[in-house]
Amino acid sequence: MQKTGILGGGQLGRMLLQQAANYPVETYIMENDPQCAAAHLCHHFVLGDIGNYDDVYNFGKGLDVLTIEIESVNVEALVKLEAEGVKVYPHPSTLRLIKNKILQKEFYKQNDIPSAEYLVVQNKKELEQKSIFLPAVNKLAEGGYDGRGVAILKTIDDLKFGFDAPGIVEKLIPVQKEISVIIAISDTGQTAFYPPVEMVFDPKLNLLDYQVCPADIPENTLWHIEAIAVKVAKALKSPGLFAVELFVDINQAVYVNETAPRVHNSGHHTIEANFCSQYDMLWRILLGYPLGNTSIIKHSALVNLVGDKDYNGDVQYQGLPETLALGNTYVHLYGKKQTKPGRKMGHVTLIGDHTKDLIRKALLIKSQLKVIA
Amino acid sequence: MQKTGILGGGQLGRMLLQQAANYPVETYIMENDPQCAAAHLCHHFVLGDIGNYDDVYNFGKGLDVLTIEIESVNVEALVKLEAEGVKVYPHPSTLRLIKNKILQKEFYKQNDIPSAEYLVVQNKKELEQKSIFLPAVNKLAEGGYDGRGVAILKTIDDLKFGFDAPGIVEKLIPVQKEISVIIAISDTGQTAFYPPVEMVFDPKLNLLDYQVCPADIPENTLWHIEAIAVKVAKALKSPGLFAVELFVDINQAVYVNETAPRVHNSGHHTIEANFCSQYDMLWRILLGYPLGNTSIIKHSALVNLVGDKDYNGDVQYQGLPETLALGNTYVHLYGKKQTKPGRKMGHVTLIGDHTKDLIRKALLIKSQLKVIA
Repeated sequence: MQKTGILGGGQLGRMLLQQAANYPVETYIMENDPQCAAAHLCHHFVLGDIGNYDDVYNFGKGLDVLTIEIESVNVEALVKLEAEGVKVYPHPSTLRLIKNKILQKEFYKQNDIPSAEYLVVQNKKELEQKSIFLPAVNKLAEGGYDGRGVAILKTIDDLKFGFDAPGIVEKLIPVQKEISVIIAISDTGQTAFYPPVEMVFDPKLNLLDYQVCPADIPENTLWHIEAIAVKVAKALKSPGLFAVELFVDINQAVYVNETAPRVHNSGHHTIEANFCSQYDMLWRILLGYPLGNTSIIKHSALVNLVGDKDYNGDVQYQGLPETLALGNTYVHLYGKKQTKPGRKMGHVTLIGDHTKDLIRKALLIKSQLKVIA
Repeated sequence: MQKTGILGGGQLGRMLLQQAANYPVETYIMENDPQCAAAHLCHHFVLGDIGNYDDVYNFGKGLDVLTIEIESVNVEALVKLEAEGVKVYPHPSTLRLIKNKILQKEFYKQNDIPSAEYLVVQNKKELEQKSIFLPAVNKLAEGGYDGRGVAILKTIDDLKFGFDAPGIVEKLIPVQKEISVIIAISDTGQTAFYPPVEMVFDPKLNLLDYQVCPADIPENTLWHIEAIAVKVAKALKSPGLFAVELFVDINQAVYVNETAPRVHNSGHHTIEANFCSQYDMLWRILLGYPLGNTSIIKHSALVNLVGDKDYNGDVQYQGLPETLALGNTYVHLYGKKQTKPGRKMGHVTLIGDHTKDLIRKALLIKSQLKVIA
């Protein structure tokens, strides 16, 4: 039994552990909350701070394999563990590069990977001198997550919403579609590419409305996306699973937005809709097994369940039976006891033969399934 | 969060818990082994004897729902818990009937459900007086499991292999095929029927070789099987999931062999091959949600991984990478640390479009995947 540790105990860890039970692996989780989503599904739960050097080092010592479910971990401890022989996927060097938006953008530039034009800014004052760059996006170099640490600056008046900290300012792409692709790379260099997902946003709220797979894009664009994603994954020089988020602009040009070096929100649908899920795939990589089949079994749509804006407190779900009655709908709740506005509490995957039907059902679920308190 | 207890912590419990993490449920397991297959995947593990009245009663007190993953539980404690308001699925009265082979055979007879002709025998002496019944099968009334408690008596000389305890002796059916069907019944009386599985036995070893789904049977026989399975499930008068094992004889006549009131070995393939797995389905029943879709997504074959006959001790698996490289193969190991000859250690499901290809691959896996020490 390989002793495998995961840094972070959120929903991604939870779904990794549901899959881990199929393989000969002894699982360890570190998180600072004993009630976290993954805590009760591992063999060994360790209370600790994934950002703390000593906590991470002590957790990883003696393990065979170590991975992450969130980027905000102590990389220095991982460097030491790797030097001492622990298999760390993704490699700490890759993680360090991705964790910092300045380094990540430099990486795309150095590797001729198309990404929006950008400048480095050290503080708000520097940012304010870049008004010629507008409309633009200001991103914090470190610590952004789930939409935090990102400010959209359309006019000079918006500059005051920028960050007074090191980061980047990049030109706003006239986005036609937002695409995410997950790519697996084994320690022998094999790659496997999941069919792209299309993220559909609510134009009013700028919140993800639903996602569908496969994305509705021309074949040429698909090839372009695949080539870019493979290039990103290979240039990162690490085994692991990578979610590459891309923009397709109104001229079908493709730009990398950002990359996550782990299982990803945009890959939840692979549990039911693909032959090998992203969670299964990461275990195959961690344990040294051959990569799985990324093909889709069915078309899919996915709706995130987030806390309704008017509720805080002990979570309750309204409309679960109605959702399950729709047929070929798969509810995944993350076991979080408390809801708050916008908190990710679960998701619902729908599979079927026609994307149009799935979108109709997805919108129905959004209207009938409520996360309240 | 519904507090749900499962009596028994083997592989069926393990797979129930993998699925439970999708629903708003707090899970409790009772088993007498803290290292059992399900122990680390529940919220609350309780060490206890599932056959002991006090242990079961104390475990179930305060829970909302209680179910089983093995029949050998203390039914009297369940009767009391049910009287005190705990939802017990399957109902204790149904469980009592099924647990005892004499009562189970009487149940088939009373309900005009076809099953092999039988007689009750109290001991070996009585059995020896029934030689006119040969060739026959002698089954212990209580405590048989996984092939134990069953003796095939072909000739008068074989009578000495019969049991000196209460049981039944039934006429041997000239079996053409062994079929298993799983049927779900909700607490509102809705039923859902899984496409039948065909169990293929090694004629030399009398061990299950592999199983395939859907079974290769004429449509008329399928209808006959469905009608019988629905009749069994309805007559049992309990919500739950039931695996009905049947024989089809050389004249296409159908006989019920026996029924299990729980998720079943013959339904493992539903995790990948059906829209709603048997594990998902049981949770839907326990939690009062609508039943799921039992249709197959793909054809499937399933191979059990049992301990090789020459090995005892710390388990090792040989040939896992080769099995996973075959494509659309799903390995499920049960996390048992020790192997012994014939012990069920895991299974592999294969899915695809053509049963013939799947059987070829299943036989390949049987030859290359070894459970050794």
